[in-house]
Amino acid sequence: MESVDHLADERGKASFDVDEMKVVWAGSRHVLELSERIARLVASDPAFQKDNRTTLGRKELFKNTLRKAAHAWKRIIELRLTEEEASKLRFYVDEPAFTDLHWGMFVPAIKGQGTEEQQQKWLPLAYKMQIIGCYAQTELGHGSNVQGLETTATFDPQTDEFIINSPTLTSSKWWPGGLGKVSTHAVVYARLITDGQDHGVHGFIVQLRSLDDHLPLEGITIGDIGTKFGNGAYNTMDNGVLRFDNVRIPRNQMLMRVSQVTREGKYVHSNVPRQLVYGTMVYVRQTIVADASCALSRAVCIATRYSAVRRQFGSQKGGVETQVIDYKTQQNRLFPLLASAYAFRFVGEWLKWLYTDVTERLQANDFSTLPEAHACTAGLKSLTTSATADGIEECRKLCGGHGYLCSSGLPELFAVYVPACTYEGDNVVLLLQVARFLMKTVSQLGSGKKPVGTTAYFLQVEHLMQCSSSARKAEDWLKPSVILEAFEARAVRMSVACAQRLGKFANLEEGFLELSADLIEAAVAHCQLIVVSKFIEKLKQNIPGKGVKDQLENLCNIYALFLLHKHLGDFLSTGVISSKQASLANDQLRSLYSQVRPNAVALVDAFNYTDHFLGSILGRYDGNVYPKLYEEAWKDPLNDSVVPDGYHEYVRPMLKQQLRNARL
Amino acid sequence: MESVDHLADERGKASFDVDEMKVVWAGSRHVLELSERIARLVASDPAFQKDNRTTLGRKELFKNTLRKAAHAWKRIIELRLTEEEASKLRFYVDEPAFTDLHWGMFVPAIKGQGTEEQQQKWLPLAYKMQIIGCYAQTELGHGSNVQGLETTATFDPQTDEFIINSPTLTSSKWWPGGLGKVSTHAVVYARLITDGQDHGVHGFIVQLRSLDDHLPLEGITIGDIGTKFGNGAYNTMDNGVLRFDNVRIPRNQMLMRVSQVTREGKYVHSNVPRQLVYGTMVYVRQTIVADASCALSRAVCIATRYSAVRRQFGSQKGGVETQVIDYKTQQNRLFPLLASAYAFRFVGEWLKWLYTDVTERLQANDFSTLPEAHACTAGLKSLTTSATADGIEECRKLCGGHGYLCSSGLPELFAVYVPACTYEGDNVVLLLQVARFLMKTVSQLGSGKKPVGTTAYFLQVEHLMQCSSSARKAEDWLKPSVILEAFEARAVRMSVACAQRLGKFANLEEGFLELSADLIEAAVAHCQLIVVSKFIEKLKQNIPGKGVKDQLENLCNIYALFLLHKHLGDFLSTGVISSKQASLANDQLRSLYSQVRPNAVALVDAFNYTDHFLGSILGRYDGNVYPKLYEEAWKDPLNDSVVPDGYHEYVRPMLKQQLRNARL
Ligand SMILES: Cc1cc2nc3c(=O)[nH]c(=O)nc-3n(C[C@H](O)[C@H](O)[C@H](O)COP(=O)(O)OP(=O)(O)OC[C@H]3O[C@@H](n4cnc5c(N)ncnc54)[C@H](O)[C@@H]3O)c2cc1C
Ligand SMILES: Cc1cc2nc3c(=O)[nH]c(=O)nc-3n(C[C@H](O)[C@H](O)[C@H](O)COP(=O)(O)OP(=O)(O)OC[C@H]3O[C@@H](n4cnc5c(N)ncnc54)[C@H](O)[C@@H]3O)c2cc1C
Ligand SMILES: [Ca+2]
Repeated sequence: MESVDHLADERGKASFDVDEMKVVWAGSRHVLELSERIARLVASDPAFQKDNRTTLGRKELFKNTLRKAAHAWKRIIELRLTEEEASKLRFYVDEPAFTDLHWGMFVPAIKGQGTEEQQQKWLPLAYKMQIIGCYAQTELGHGSNVQGLETTATFDPQTDEFIINSPTLTSSKWWPGGLGKVSTHAVVYARLITDGQDHGVHGFIVQLRSLDDHLPLEGITIGDIGTKFGNGAYNTMDNGVLRFDNVRIPRNQMLMRVSQVTREGKYVHSNVPRQLVYGTMVYVRQTIVADASCALSRAVCIATRYSAVRRQFGSQKGGVETQVIDYKTQQNRLFPLLASAYAFRFVGEWLKWLYTDVTERLQANDFSTLPEAHACTAGLKSLTTSATADGIEECRKLCGGHGYLCSSGLPELFAVYVPACTYEGDNVVLLLQVARFLMKTVSQLGSGKKPVGTTAYFLQVEHLMQCSSSARKAEDWLKPSVILEAFEARAVRMSVACAQRLGKFANLEEGFLELSADLIEAAVAHCQLIVVSKFIEKLKQNIPGKGVKDQLENLCNIYALFLLHKHLGDFLSTGVISSKQASLANDQLRSLYSQVRPNAVALVDAFNYTDHFLGSILGRYDGNVYPKLYEEAWKDPLNDSVVPDGYHEYVRPMLKQQLRNARL
Repeated sequence: MESVDHLADERGKASFDVDEMKVVWAGSRHVLELSERIARLVASDPAFQKDNRTTLGRKELFKNTLRKAAHAWKRIIELRLTEEEASKLRFYVDEPAFTDLHWGMFVPAIKGQGTEEQQQKWLPLAYKMQIIGCYAQTELGHGSNVQGLETTATFDPQTDEFIINSPTLTSSKWWPGGLGKVSTHAVVYARLITDGQDHGVHGFIVQLRSLDDHLPLEGITIGDIGTKFGNGAYNTMDNGVLRFDNVRIPRNQMLMRVSQVTREGKYVHSNVPRQLVYGTMVYVRQTIVADASCALSRAVCIATRYSAVRRQFGSQKGGVETQVIDYKTQQNRLFPLLASAYAFRFVGEWLKWLYTDVTERLQANDFSTLPEAHACTAGLKSLTTSATADGIEECRKLCGGHGYLCSSGLPELFAVYVPACTYEGDNVVLLLQVARFLMKTVSQLGSGKKPVGTTAYFLQVEHLMQCSSSARKAEDWLKPSVILEAFEARAVRMSVACAQRLGKFANLEEGFLELSADLIEAAVAHCQLIVVSKFIEKLKQNIPGKGVKDQLENLCNIYALFLLHKHLGDFLSTGVISSKQASLANDQLRSLYSQVRPNAVALVDAFNYTDHFLGSILGRYDGNVYPKLYEEAWKDPLNDSVVPDGYHEYVRPMLKQQLRNARL
């Protein structure tokens, strides 16, 4: 096997310590070491091969995923992996499966909403996978509006049971991952009805399939909802449909941590505060932000390496052509995405801290930061997943024609990633929530209620409403204070402007609906500020390693100045900066690109992804793109024969003018 | 069968004559009638069924495409369809196939670059499909830079032949559609070498496969390059790889309309002007712009109908919920795309005229408008395909979770459409060409050389550099003159600013590279102006039908004001408008949305797409979404059995804690 590093030159150009950057990216030396160990474990195990995924039919593909999930679980047990290691293993196996929902939603739902007793009963079963669970909330007719769910759970005091029922077609559960073919149990969300009274939506643990023969229990209809975007992609997941025909479950399978139904059928609240559920939401969304930085960094890694390999134009008469990464247009599309990957990584890290902080406060009955934390995670989920989905597709385009081949890894990465914009809250619906929170924040400014956390900058509203940027020359745009002030002023002014316009409506709700497109822009401005400010905060830490901090500073500035250019209309129309200052910022951005250029390949090496995980010929570590693309092509089933199946029936008669009599 | 129209209410709200709008969309009553007839023909023929595409493996899928192509050809012959009808039939069959390249590239290349004699020899064979041809230009290592191709065609005076050769791996032909499995012939682009001298890239007709047994001829290696984005999508096409090992072809198979190699091996130019090839380019790109409006309108039709069916939130205690199309955020995402579909339709129509105009001029040896026409088609190809690709994905997101199902039709529409951003010129590379042309235009302004066609507005450069918008109230933004002036001033100022900055570079080429990101923005501004101005021109025509013109005026204004808001930074930083004026424009935009809202469903009905063609359950004409989604799900192969394949091997052992001993 050839082992020339075609990117050695690029790696030689880097002016920073890549190994130290790997630690920064991983979060700690411990995580780096662990990730590397598990990544290698997965990459070297033939059972986890994945390069044939796009050529399999749905059934084969799905069976293969079942096999991998079982194999992964077997290895987890055999090697006695810790929870941290096990979850990394699932991550590197890199194939959506029922286990994601089991561990990511079913278990947390029981933990968050189950009583001590319920946890003691169900969690050990789940931990050992003696039962497999999914999260059944969405219905055919009801997604974003959870309060509109139609499934009912009616208490029958005679038998001490709930009757779970799907009264309409639109009440069919629809979308839950792992439901279609695998799950034995589900947390089902349904309207609780006692004594004819509707108490709104609550969670119930419902057994779906027999543990003997895996057949759906009586009164239960289950199926898969069909093929989704992409080839392999999310089609390894059995997103399912589920209907209940008056299915009975014991009363103690309602998740009763916050509210309960007594033996007599009385609906009562426990002394556990309702807000606890927000904790789970913050947790889940924090993992989604972390996933965004993974997915985006993966795409950026592929596009960066390939852009250094690919040469096009600019040769002097037969000499070598220019690497496309040297074109400013390529840099202007690619480097902001590289910067975004790092930015999302750090804001994700911070969200992990936020989750711990929120949890501690909840335990101490301090709910003061909860609405802010909730809005902030909603906004960051929306911002990072939208940017990542768009960014992956842009990376694909940055690879020209070859990016359209599945062997580039990018089409499937896009297809598998993009539902993150929709699940766990449609991104637009989430931004509207952020906007609502911002309007509340503005309206309370006079009231003495102090804005906290990521809205603390509203304290300086007076200054921010009238300040003007002090940037006089391009380099001024490298100063964190200059950048922060511009982003804060833009966000405050957009929020305040919306609030003022809202004030003119007699009916606030109507005003909110009418102005919602503008409100969303204010929410985006606020969320972008959060990402920028968390990047800046990160850089205040001690970051060791030659040149590491310099590189991160460049990326932070690129992230901010790229956004400033992209949303220039905001900054100019609110009078935060002048056209002249905008033009200086742009000059600075261009010069930052030049500084990143020689470090680009090393900056993506720092993600430390194996070729197995990347799953991309264009993104190969060694840059040996062309021979491997060529090799890969021949593996397509269509190349099984030189003359294709169908030639004799359909092509030859055409060529021979014998179609008229042919039976097709 | 149920035949309730769930969208009847919506249709009832429309305030214009839908049938007349259909004529406008189709271009003429003749085309409307023809399209309708052919669309029905295709939809009613079971051989053209396509709803199983996403569940087929590559080989089955491909064989199916061969079958459909043969059946289509059979019908074309049997029904004696005209060329116009035949091409509509292929359009409604809606499945990329080798025939696209045969008719769309192979035949036009021979027509455009072949001598009379060559046309007489080859075209009749091609017209009858006695040979099937493809267009083999791109190589593994060379795409955008056509001049960098490596394949050689060396003249051998001894045998009066060319020797076609692939000297390196990167010179392998790579991407040509129809090449991999079907084509018997190709137009191959190769460096012409006579007597040791390289004359650059020329086209050659090369037979690839035996007409007896379809095997590649000696010295020729051919295969398919593998799976591409999406499931069905473009995988029905056999994009291929092709290598030549010193393959000999007769001298008269070089396409010799413009330059020739004589029997003696002399390279000579004919008296046919080289510029003729641009004619073909204008033609091909014009069809791409037309395709953009088709693809976008299709996605918009699906998203609009579903947005009227889908209800979420806003119910008063159990009442019906709000149609999501009533949310301003939904309108703000959807209606500009609806407007864009119409805008692209009209600019496509105009391009057809441009092509005729260019052709006539070429025949009269008038090359004066050619560079402008070339830049304009390059820019419009780039603008419309990028906007369409993004627009389809936005439409998918507008459908929430259900948009992620293949049964929505949107994932496959995206996957099959998106390479239009790359083929026939990478969109960024094309914009750079436009920018170059604009810089030339600016530099010649003083010279007396008058800007023509779509650059004629540069004549008013002095006015446009210093004018300020006269908009004083929201309604002023409805005036075509106000809109046009703003777009012209923005475009001129961005071009002039770039030219001035370029002037500061000692080396113009270096300057161009350095400023290329800004240059591209100037090019986009210019192209958007073209689309806006052609829409406005269209509205100057007599357009009959109750309310039809009013609707089109609304859409035209939405298109323009939406762009103005999206690129607000451009308009403000060049001082074309003030923040206050921008805010008025935005108010006007919102009020236009309200006017479009009741007409939205009727405006997409005007596209006159059959349910077969749309291929989307969410976009069904009758709006009967939920029962049909439910029905469709059960057809997935995964639902062949209730207990999935793999349960006994992989799931049961897990549940029963028997994995340890399992062999996976
Ligand atoms: C791959 C995938 C996996 C999933 N897994 C699960 C799972 O395991 N369990 C589960 O329960 N669910 C799951 N879901 C469902 C998912 O949670 C929902 O799809 C999501 O909540 C969005 O809801 P929706 O589909 O109803 O979108 P809709 O709400 O119907 O959105 C349609 C459109 O309406 C707009 N809209 C809706 N409400 C408003 C409003 N108030 N104002 C303005 N605009 C609005 C949206 O922005 C969107 O453009 C999954 C979905 C996908 C795609
Ligand atoms: C589905 C599909 C069908 C096709 N069908 C055919 C066919 O039938 N026949 C055929 O011959 N070919 C075909 N092609 C090939 C197609 O024409 C090329 O892919 C296209 O020309 C783009 O070239 P590339 O792939 O080399 O991209 P590249 O040029 O390698 O682009 C890679 C990146 O470099 C950037 N870049 C390149 N040059 C410059 C520059 N000068 N300045 C700044 N940036 C630059 C691009 O913007 C892009 O981001 C097909 C391709 C696809 C995807
Ligand atoms: Ca497939």
